[in-house]
Amino acid sequence: MTETTAPAVGHQHDGPHGYASDKGAYLKRMRRIEGQVRGIARMIDEDVYCIDILTQVSAVTKALQAVSIGLVEDHLGHCVVDAARASEAEGAAKVKEAADAIGRLVRS
Amino acid sequence: MTETTAPAVGHQHDGPHGYASDKGAYLKRMRRIEGQVRGIARMIDEDVYCIDILTQVSAVTKALQAVSIGLVEDHLGHCVVDAARASEAEGAAKVKEAADAIGRLVRS
Amino acid sequence: MTETTAPAVGHQHDGPHGYASDKGAYLKRMRRIEGQVRGIARMIDEDVYCIDILTQVSAVTKALQAVSIGLVEDHLGHCVVDAARASEAEGAAKVKEAADAIGRLVRS
Amino acid sequence: MTETTAPAVGHQHDGPHGYASDKGAYLKRMRRIEGQVRGIARMIDEDVYCIDILTQVSAVTKALQAVSIGLVEDHLGHCVVDAARASEAEGAAKVKEAADAIGRLVRS
Repeated sequence: MTETTAPAVGHQHDGPHGYASDKGAYLKRMRRIEGQVRGIARMIDEDVYCIDILTQVSAVTKALQAVSIGLVEDHLGHCVVDAARASEAEGAAKVKEAADAIGRLVRS
Repeated sequence: MTETTAPAVGHQHDGPHGYASDKGAYLKRMRRIEGQVRGIARMIDEDVYCIDILTQVSAVTKALQAVSIGLVEDHLGHCVVDAARASEAEGAAKVKEAADAIGRLVRS
Repeated sequence: MTETTAPAVGHQHDGPHGYASDKGAYLKRMRRIEGQVRGIARMIDEDVYCIDILTQVSAVTKALQAVSIGLVEDHLGHCVVDAARASEAEGAAKVKEAADAIGRLVRS
Repeated sequence: MTETTAPAVGHQHDGPHGYASDKGAYLKRMRRIEGQVRGIARMIDEDVYCIDILTQVSAVTKALQAVSIGLVEDHLGHCVVDAARASEAEGAAKVKEAADAIGRLVRS
């Protein structure tokens, strides 16, 4: 196996990451989520009815899940696919790592 | 808007809400979550590895769920219990409303 | 209401449970879920495509969540409301117990 | 291994699926889950306390999630990796399909 460049330190990866092409869109989504979180704090501060706060928390959770599903897709489509093409061992390592991350998402 | 007496129109409630006694603690938790969300945006901006971002998104989702479970408990312990004592109809209405909100949380 | 006996040992409750009136409907839903689970085993045995199995697993998870949301609503509307009317301490104990169970559902 | 034809019609795949090597283990897990589901029906039939039923429903949901995380890992490690090596287009199609299935799991 000739892994010339990429010293694969830890889970590093030397190319651009899967989400790189959509970076601007992800940043925009995260800023919107940050605003929603701040909005929930304001609702609590202004004594808004509990149920309305819960509805808003569910909305933020859903928005975060959507971001993470997008990141998973980008990660599979770039990092995992590239690793699979590079070598069987690299592919297997990336798949294991991705599956663990997906497991954390499914359970959270 | 002058909310003098709160005739319980819709889901209104004239007393303090369930989370009122812990308001400071909830606000602190929401500020921490806001910081975590901002941290994720920064990770994306700095091209941090996808999997590390996913791990952080799972952590924020879990933190939000913990807040919502706390809000549900406070809501049941105050608004729902108070309604149950006031009358059968009020209790039933609050239970329906709480169950719907819990359903949204479980599904999100 | 004369609840003479019921010394509230553990989480016991002497009356009919919240879901009692819908018992037949719940049993029917559980039997359908059992059939779906058996169907997934058959799909695995017949080497059906992974993604189709995953879709079916998601469907069963959703069906189970719907059952649990129904059980929560029935539980709040009967056991928790009754406890809230019986005494402040009983209401608080039932709320704590219900919130813990809801937390397990939200996290699962 | 002689993968002669493989017309990749729809989401078909002519080789063994990702989970094939663990088929026996998956079948055993599904049978255990089926038994747990039947156990929940029995609990309902025997008027077991709602909260205990909810705990059991959460346990089954977790067991199903564990199965689906295993299936995802096996699927990524076989079908997706194989497709990535076969061609860019096949890899991209399998990634999209897998991401959609993962999205359904995360949301369920």
